[in-house]
Amino acid sequence: MSKPLQSWVEIAPDSDFSIHNLPYGIFESAGRGPRVGVAIGDQILDLAACSSLGLLDALEIPRWVFESQSLNELIRLGKATHAQLRDWLTHALSLPEHPLREHASQVLIPISDARMHLPVEVGDYTDFYSSIDHATNVGTMFRDPENALLPNWKHIPVGYHGRASSIIVSGTPIQRPVGQTMPADATSPVFGPSRLLDFELEMAFILGKDTQLGQRVSTAQAEDYIFGMVLFNDWSARDIQKWEYVPLGPFLAKSFASSISPWVVPIEALAPFKIPGPVQEPPVLPYLKVSQPSGLDINLEVAIQVPEQAEAIVCRSNARHLYWSMHQQLAHHTVNGCNIRVGDMCASGTISGPEKSSFGSMLELSWRGTQPLPMPDGSERKFLLDYDTVIMRGHAEKDGIRVGFGEVRSQILPAAE
Amino acid sequence: MSKPLQSWVEIAPDSDFSIHNLPYGIFESAGRGPRVGVAIGDQILDLAACSSLGLLDALEIPRWVFESQSLNELIRLGKATHAQLRDWLTHALSLPEHPLREHASQVLIPISDARMHLPVEVGDYTDFYSSIDHATNVGTMFRDPENALLPNWKHIPVGYHGRASSIIVSGTPIQRPVGQTMPADATSPVFGPSRLLDFELEMAFILGKDTQLGQRVSTAQAEDYIFGMVLFNDWSARDIQKWEYVPLGPFLAKSFASSISPWVVPIEALAPFKIPGPVQEPPVLPYLKVSQPSGLDINLEVAIQVPEQAEAIVCRSNARHLYWSMHQQLAHHTVNGCNIRVGDMCASGTISGPEKSSFGSMLELSWRGTQPLPMPDGSERKFLLDYDTVIMRGHAEKDGIRVGFGEVRSQILPAAE
Repeated sequence: MSKPLQSWVEIAPDSDFSIHNLPYGIFESAGRGPRVGVAIGDQILDLAACSSLGLLDALEIPRWVFESQSLNELIRLGKATHAQLRDWLTHALSLPEHPLREHASQVLIPISDARMHLPVEVGDYTDFYSSIDHATNVGTMFRDPENALLPNWKHIPVGYHGRASSIIVSGTPIQRPVGQTMPADATSPVFGPSRLLDFELEMAFILGKDTQLGQRVSTAQAEDYIFGMVLFNDWSARDIQKWEYVPLGPFLAKSFASSISPWVVPIEALAPFKIPGPVQEPPVLPYLKVSQPSGLDINLEVAIQVPEQAEAIVCRSNARHLYWSMHQQLAHHTVNGCNIRVGDMCASGTISGPEKSSFGSMLELSWRGTQPLPMPDGSERKFLLDYDTVIMRGHAEKDGIRVGFGEVRSQILPAAE
Repeated sequence: MSKPLQSWVEIAPDSDFSIHNLPYGIFESAGRGPRVGVAIGDQILDLAACSSLGLLDALEIPRWVFESQSLNELIRLGKATHAQLRDWLTHALSLPEHPLREHASQVLIPISDARMHLPVEVGDYTDFYSSIDHATNVGTMFRDPENALLPNWKHIPVGYHGRASSIIVSGTPIQRPVGQTMPADATSPVFGPSRLLDFELEMAFILGKDTQLGQRVSTAQAEDYIFGMVLFNDWSARDIQKWEYVPLGPFLAKSFASSISPWVVPIEALAPFKIPGPVQEPPVLPYLKVSQPSGLDINLEVAIQVPEQAEAIVCRSNARHLYWSMHQQLAHHTVNGCNIRVGDMCASGTISGPEKSSFGSMLELSWRGTQPLPMPDGSERKFLLDYDTVIMRGHAEKDGIRVGFGEVRSQILPAAE
């Protein structure tokens, strides 16, 4: 790996948005509507403004692409164009004499002055279940500790369809959902706010290329179809889930909201952090085999913030704990001919590690409510309470190069009357 | 109910597309691209052409709405505009002296000359499981005949998220999916074409109005949010399903394709065919109660056509067999605050009746393959074979008025090499 590049933009050493990252997002600021930007340090490079100034003319990307309300049109231009744009960004932000620098005051906007939007229009959203520790924990708690993993788990990257409409961007509060539950001591269901509201620490990848119905994407081809990644909080109402999910899977327990981080980190920026995936035993079927490192070494953490208190870090995990890689998830997803579209989102499932401190949900951290977590204000948490804010962060670091995701942060508001 | 209207367009007495129906679709013909049409008898009224000719000027609907490649923009105009348009269509097609008639040759196109497109852009697709006979049959075959219905079934209109990208229009062939299955006598999974390919006879409703995240739609409000209905074939690969579906529900067993009929029958056209739903015992929670008839008396049938043979009708069912109504499904879907969007699609789940001849899937009709169905060529069907064509039809009829759905027809092609 080459040594770290420097930018003429001032970038703190612990910034997630180094010049090696260059994530894309949709932002608005200063009375101007949503447009495409790239995060660099604590600033946003306004690509719509760059395009207006003619700075991007050599790339021949129509200006309206940068004035879109989602990244979908930019994504649709394809990997070759993305490579040119990334190359331009790297040069423009690192060469002290680059023409961009003269226009810095017109094209760089403090992140703190901007409001971020959902970065992509999501066609279909799929949620996998790819952490072996998470699946084992859930199986141990709810089924049989002796046979915690179901028979299909090591053969299939188990997944299910989720709700695309309720994917929201970091900063948007969520409302505690109401619904039907069946309390342990009841003989008929009751109705009311969920009492077991939970987060799930996940990452998600965003698809960068369409396929036709009937077309398969192999593990070797997968990266050609992946644009980038975000942090993903798969909010879950455990009491609603328990009552509804047999036999067709989670529905209202999840569909009230899923929160994502606003900056889409290009898959290319994550290349230095690839690691071999775990040994898969029993061996997987040929269509799921990978011949190159397909895991990712990305540090992840979850904090809960009680109003007016310091954050409490409740989980430190890592994407390396995933048993199934994105390549395998995508090969499986399309093996039956299911078509994918630009903007589709695939989440990993809760990323728990083997240690208790790395469990990626309150369900596991509090072990079904039996081991509450202490909060800075002296209170305890089995599950999430109203006004709690959940913050997830993620970054990779190697050889002095840091590429991070920023955060996904959302506060829980009380259920509607 | 008023007596049947007559149209100056010639309409066969058994036509699904009487003047009381007026379903919307997207069609192309004669070298002109996709646009909005209304089926009447065996013709399509070209609304883009009507708009060009100024015939629709009084409605003040922009012409591009009728030149769209989906009905979404028309749907988004709202119920008041739809009522005006429906009123105009009713008059224009029934009054012998209406100005439209002079332009008949320019605006009426034989259905046989047109190619139909997917009528809506589907944001999210949800599949319910609302036929008590279907759920009982499945529970009897796969679980416990003594406790065939799961404990939640009579309390919750059970549903799950499906794949929106692979919803295709009638006439599009499907490819037999390949995937992982676990044969009964195997110790590890095998890979190959599904051997247990099935249809599921369903109907689906299309949402006509957005909600905000956090907003609920009550059973009383539900019809304000429903634009219309189509026939829905929820293709299912039973062997893939059996191996993958625990614990998160069906995924690749369904996502390779779902087929719908091309004409969206407005919910208003179905008003005369409303009937009370079944008695629900135990009583449902208050948010699921309905105060008006919310069932529908719609005759449904499924035929299988073996190449060069006559069709074999294998199922005659009726939408009246649904235990849960659309009103209840939608109230349940949004009770947790999940937002809905114009074009979202909600399918009913397999519509089986109590008699064997009314079972809505091969799984049930052949009772898991133990009772094969005879075909006209002397062959038998446990499940579907390559080159079989599945045809579903539906219509309502009362007091001499017929409102139908046409058909959804798809041929099965062999799995890809």
